[in-house]
Amino acid sequence: MAVPIGLAVVGAGYWGPNLVRNAMATAALDLRWLCDLDVARARQVLGPYTTVAVTDSFDEILGDPSVQAVAIATPAASHFPLAMAALDAGKHVLVEKPLTASLADGQKLVQTAEDRGLVLMCDHTYCYTSAVQELRRLIRGGHLGGIQFVDSVRINLGLVQPDIDVLWDLAPHDLSILDFLMPPGLSVVSVSAHGADPIGHGVACVGYLTLRLSNGAIAHIHVNWLSPIKIRTMVIGGSHRTVVWDDMNPSQRLSVYDRGVDRMASQELDADDRQQVRISYRSGDMVAPALREQEALRMMMAEFAASILEGRPAATDGRAGLRVMSILDAAGRSLELDGVSVRVERPA
Amino acid sequence: MAVPIGLAVVGAGYWGPNLVRNAMATAALDLRWLCDLDVARARQVLGPYTTVAVTDSFDEILGDPSVQAVAIATPAASHFPLAMAALDAGKHVLVEKPLTASLADGQKLVQTAEDRGLVLMCDHTYCYTSAVQELRRLIRGGHLGGIQFVDSVRINLGLVQPDIDVLWDLAPHDLSILDFLMPPGLSVVSVSAHGADPIGHGVACVGYLTLRLSNGAIAHIHVNWLSPIKIRTMVIGGSHRTVVWDDMNPSQRLSVYDRGVDRMASQELDADDRQQVRISYRSGDMVAPALREQEALRMMMAEFAASILEGRPAATDGRAGLRVMSILDAAGRSLELDGVSVRVERPA
Amino acid sequence: MAVPIGLAVVGAGYWGPNLVRNAMATAALDLRWLCDLDVARARQVLGPYTTVAVTDSFDEILGDPSVQAVAIATPAASHFPLAMAALDAGKHVLVEKPLTASLADGQKLVQTAEDRGLVLMCDHTYCYTSAVQELRRLIRGGHLGGIQFVDSVRINLGLVQPDIDVLWDLAPHDLSILDFLMPPGLSVVSVSAHGADPIGHGVACVGYLTLRLSNGAIAHIHVNWLSPIKIRTMVIGGSHRTVVWDDMNPSQRLSVYDRGVDRMASQELDADDRQQVRISYRSGDMVAPALREQEALRMMMAEFAASILEGRPAATDGRAGLRVMSILDAAGRSLELDGVSVRVERPA
Amino acid sequence: MAVPIGLAVVGAGYWGPNLVRNAMATAALDLRWLCDLDVARARQVLGPYTTVAVTDSFDEILGDPSVQAVAIATPAASHFPLAMAALDAGKHVLVEKPLTASLADGQKLVQTAEDRGLVLMCDHTYCYTSAVQELRRLIRGGHLGGIQFVDSVRINLGLVQPDIDVLWDLAPHDLSILDFLMPPGLSVVSVSAHGADPIGHGVACVGYLTLRLSNGAIAHIHVNWLSPIKIRTMVIGGSHRTVVWDDMNPSQRLSVYDRGVDRMASQELDADDRQQVRISYRSGDMVAPALREQEALRMMMAEFAASILEGRPAATDGRAGLRVMSILDAAGRSLELDGVSVRVERPA
Repeated sequence: MAVPIGLAVVGAGYWGPNLVRNAMATAALDLRWLCDLDVARARQVLGPYTTVAVTDSFDEILGDPSVQAVAIATPAASHFPLAMAALDAGKHVLVEKPLTASLADGQKLVQTAEDRGLVLMCDHTYCYTSAVQELRRLIRGGHLGGIQFVDSVRINLGLVQPDIDVLWDLAPHDLSILDFLMPPGLSVVSVSAHGADPIGHGVACVGYLTLRLSNGAIAHIHVNWLSPIKIRTMVIGGSHRTVVWDDMNPSQRLSVYDRGVDRMASQELDADDRQQVRISYRSGDMVAPALREQEALRMMMAEFAASILEGRPAATDGRAGLRVMSILDAAGRSLELDGVSVRVERPA
Repeated sequence: MAVPIGLAVVGAGYWGPNLVRNAMATAALDLRWLCDLDVARARQVLGPYTTVAVTDSFDEILGDPSVQAVAIATPAASHFPLAMAALDAGKHVLVEKPLTASLADGQKLVQTAEDRGLVLMCDHTYCYTSAVQELRRLIRGGHLGGIQFVDSVRINLGLVQPDIDVLWDLAPHDLSILDFLMPPGLSVVSVSAHGADPIGHGVACVGYLTLRLSNGAIAHIHVNWLSPIKIRTMVIGGSHRTVVWDDMNPSQRLSVYDRGVDRMASQELDADDRQQVRISYRSGDMVAPALREQEALRMMMAEFAASILEGRPAATDGRAGLRVMSILDAAGRSLELDGVSVRVERPA
Repeated sequence: MAVPIGLAVVGAGYWGPNLVRNAMATAALDLRWLCDLDVARARQVLGPYTTVAVTDSFDEILGDPSVQAVAIATPAASHFPLAMAALDAGKHVLVEKPLTASLADGQKLVQTAEDRGLVLMCDHTYCYTSAVQELRRLIRGGHLGGIQFVDSVRINLGLVQPDIDVLWDLAPHDLSILDFLMPPGLSVVSVSAHGADPIGHGVACVGYLTLRLSNGAIAHIHVNWLSPIKIRTMVIGGSHRTVVWDDMNPSQRLSVYDRGVDRMASQELDADDRQQVRISYRSGDMVAPALREQEALRMMMAEFAASILEGRPAATDGRAGLRVMSILDAAGRSLELDGVSVRVERPA
Repeated sequence: MAVPIGLAVVGAGYWGPNLVRNAMATAALDLRWLCDLDVARARQVLGPYTTVAVTDSFDEILGDPSVQAVAIATPAASHFPLAMAALDAGKHVLVEKPLTASLADGQKLVQTAEDRGLVLMCDHTYCYTSAVQELRRLIRGGHLGGIQFVDSVRINLGLVQPDIDVLWDLAPHDLSILDFLMPPGLSVVSVSAHGADPIGHGVACVGYLTLRLSNGAIAHIHVNWLSPIKIRTMVIGGSHRTVVWDDMNPSQRLSVYDRGVDRMASQELDADDRQQVRISYRSGDMVAPALREQEALRMMMAEFAASILEGRPAATDGRAGLRVMSILDAAGRSLELDGVSVRVERPA
């Protein structure tokens, strides 16, 4: 095996410990630093039995020639300056979602990484689950047929965020999955957003996104911080089959139904039937494909390492992050306009 | 017991047989006729062992002095003329949802029934389930606190209708339940509707309604004819408790959670805390109230008979039907305007 | 269609109304009588709109030449005299489970029916569900491979019976299903029974049966009147596939798993491996076959009529009832002997 | 805080890594060594970033004065010699279940630990889950009333063990939980065991235990290595309430039902009623108590440390391990006798 890639993790808050744990379990990576302004917190994350170094100086990391890559898990507002500095120092970069706080900043990052030939990867963790990998295989392999509708629900009694609304907090998961799953040529055209703040928190705690896809299909996302029950389901309706992903059911996450409504072409019908018998129903078997149990974050880390070693964009690269942000950006404007449909600009 | 009320059921199609069966099991009713243009179909519904008469003449029913009440389960377009003729003949009327095909017609029916002192009842069946009765008790009794959000999902591989879209077909259930549950003073202010017709059927097969309530809360309804799985859930979030109604889980239809997010009033906080500690989380027990198993339609029939005998409006009277239709009417306009929020007029 | 078979139902208690309803819906049957010692109860079952006659005289039924068949749904103790009288009068007979109260009586009934060329059928209702029909198809078609284990659970807060224990009340369902499913050549060899009466009722309210099959496999049945939750599951483990039947999950009653443990034949292994690598695990897909929704009792009634018309034994004939009773009989003796394994005699 | 207790973990196989991880997260413990005959395996468990030492010499550990306690996670046959040597060296001992391979050895260990005033603890992990802690609170607090029946199911496609049968592999979990839950004065009197080896593995892969409790109640345990679905449920029926523990449902592990069957005392009844109206049914609400999410092994480690620091027996001490083994021992004899009920000797 090649020499492992020297890595520093930045941020020891909510998500950083997960990056640390998975980096330590990835043979292709050599975790050198955990960096946090609060050094005591960083030490606590690593525990008393570690050989990994701690620092509160981002510059120290950038100046360490053994560090080739940086994983950033800090508040969204700091993503841009940290990532840009790392790219400028010639480091590959992994960034927590969302890529940056503004679309313009995101575009600068992507451009810089491409100019310098560095990997810029978004941690769209869900894309590395067995379930989403299988969903992508099903869709790309044509097993579902044409996409007819997508309905995603991601609700639970979640951590109410002080600075961002529920759409910016949770919908990036659904949007990054959708981005990963959609077959080439299919894209989001417009978005309508609705939200409510029933607890007087200052930002929306309940949110709904309605996306119009380029083939006329509808995708809908429901995110909610206030639900006492945790639901994480996505239904993807296709012209051939429909798949239900229930992430709270580990023993049967995916269910592929050979059921649906077919509209018969009029040439198949007699003249008399044309008005009445235009619809037929399929009611076939359901198949729950066997999925390998794996930690998504482990797979994501492996992809980060592999994209660096192979000099190629990561599966969820900066451009994927931009596409997600452009939808969130349009959703924010729709929210201000009481749900009016807003066109989604494709990032350059 | 008093002499039973002579009843005729009109319509032997999809829903009529249910009305026939439940009318026959209601002691306060005396089923005299089943009327359908297709007499053979009517005979088949009644079976070979019956004493109930069959006719294809609505006039014969109206002319029968032993008939005091008429239950109408015909296509929506015929509700108005049939119900109006029955009221004009002095009969009490029960009508399938939707009350009529247009709001104006509905208002005429209501006015006529009130002028003549006759019962005009909508068959909002779900309102007579044990679950909805208990939900109403919980909300009216203040157990949930103020309503913060409502999310209703009603999807399955349903009978695609030839003439009406999925919103007119399925959302009346959710809207009539919402109307029945909302405490006095709370009403629907505006509605935004989105729909899609991914099978090229001519009308929307997937639909979403976002309702703004008069207290600022949001209610959202998802209806779908194309889903291979059947989901019928309603989550009602309150400031004290949140209840989840899962109608596909007969052993635990209602789950009342003492869980939620509380925002602390600023006077409870020190100056330093004010920015940070504004939120607290409750994570208490869940209670699933015992519900009596009963057929909703049986209860609805009993209410129809009782309202006639007691000379009072039924629990789901014509005015309830009008309120539901006024929302559907606004939703239709929103759908044409690509989801723009449309004000709901309160019926006079 | 041929002239329908004249039928009388005897017993208007718990189960009789179901027989009445389904007989009325079966075109090949002509329901003439409902007989019960309590005529008022019989009238209530039929309701006020019926043309079916009521009587408290079993002799009147036997003497009616238009009655060709009798369906008996009375307490178990009366099954033998009523069924024997009906056979003696030349009527075909359908009997509620258990066939009779004693094995000897059951054998007399079977012999009499065979001597007279009359149908004697047991109402083993579950055998006529879509789920059991599909299970039989899977087993007989070799899709499961050899049967390795069967585990059946049938528990809920049930009607505690005054005269029979929970084994005689509930286990006939599991045993008749097992009898229906087992491939030719496989039979029950011995049974061990355990029971408890924790409420001091006088008979066992909780029971367990362990059956040894002729191929060495084990079948186990858990029945319980005291469980607050209702569970009705049967797991049938096969050498190729294992199927789980969850009757409380209407949207997915059957799940066929291509998962299991395989033992490799020693000739496939090197000498060194022989001790260690004897086991391999399969973890394939799961398939939930599409099942037609149908009322089992309707299918059972149709089979009763068909067996009469075609002059052949019913799918669940008297001999099937005898096989079930011989196991219950042995189980009773095991229960008295504190669970000692008791040999099951195959009925002559 | 006091100086942490020096700890060595022995065994880096299936369970050892869990002990290592939780020991490292327990502030009261200072993990000094991981010992395994396969040093490379031990190094892999600790990973490349550790300061913990590795050895293949158990003597080195016993000779290290900084080691005050030893946690043993090796195959069952080695438990006795390792634990005895550790006790002889004056170390406190935590042992994986089962305590030892034979009851006699277990008794020697317990005696030695008591003579020397050392902690001897069994890692009955499940007893430290929130669910079992709450169950114990419910039972000891009298909320369930008298125990009437217990039914435990622990089945999945498990690791088929080469040397022990499914009863010795899985039933210790159920038995240790039962031991932990039973109120003072209630004990297991006798056991009947049934097993099958349908894959020709050499030992039972499917097993059933029927336990008779000292109050006449029945407890039943179903363990199975061959089930394609994973079920882990325990129903505890009480005279007042019944609780269902479904460990595969993290959002509702415990459900406490106020439902049941009551037998009325005969003095409450008229003479005429005495035969018929002896039974009444309760059908009240269900409550799902809020449970703290916690890792059971973390709690177990904390209890190990606390029992050492406080010089008291651990909650699951060696005597608890003996009680579990005495039931397994009797079960083994019953299995050889084809299910005959065998008396359980209470350990001295």
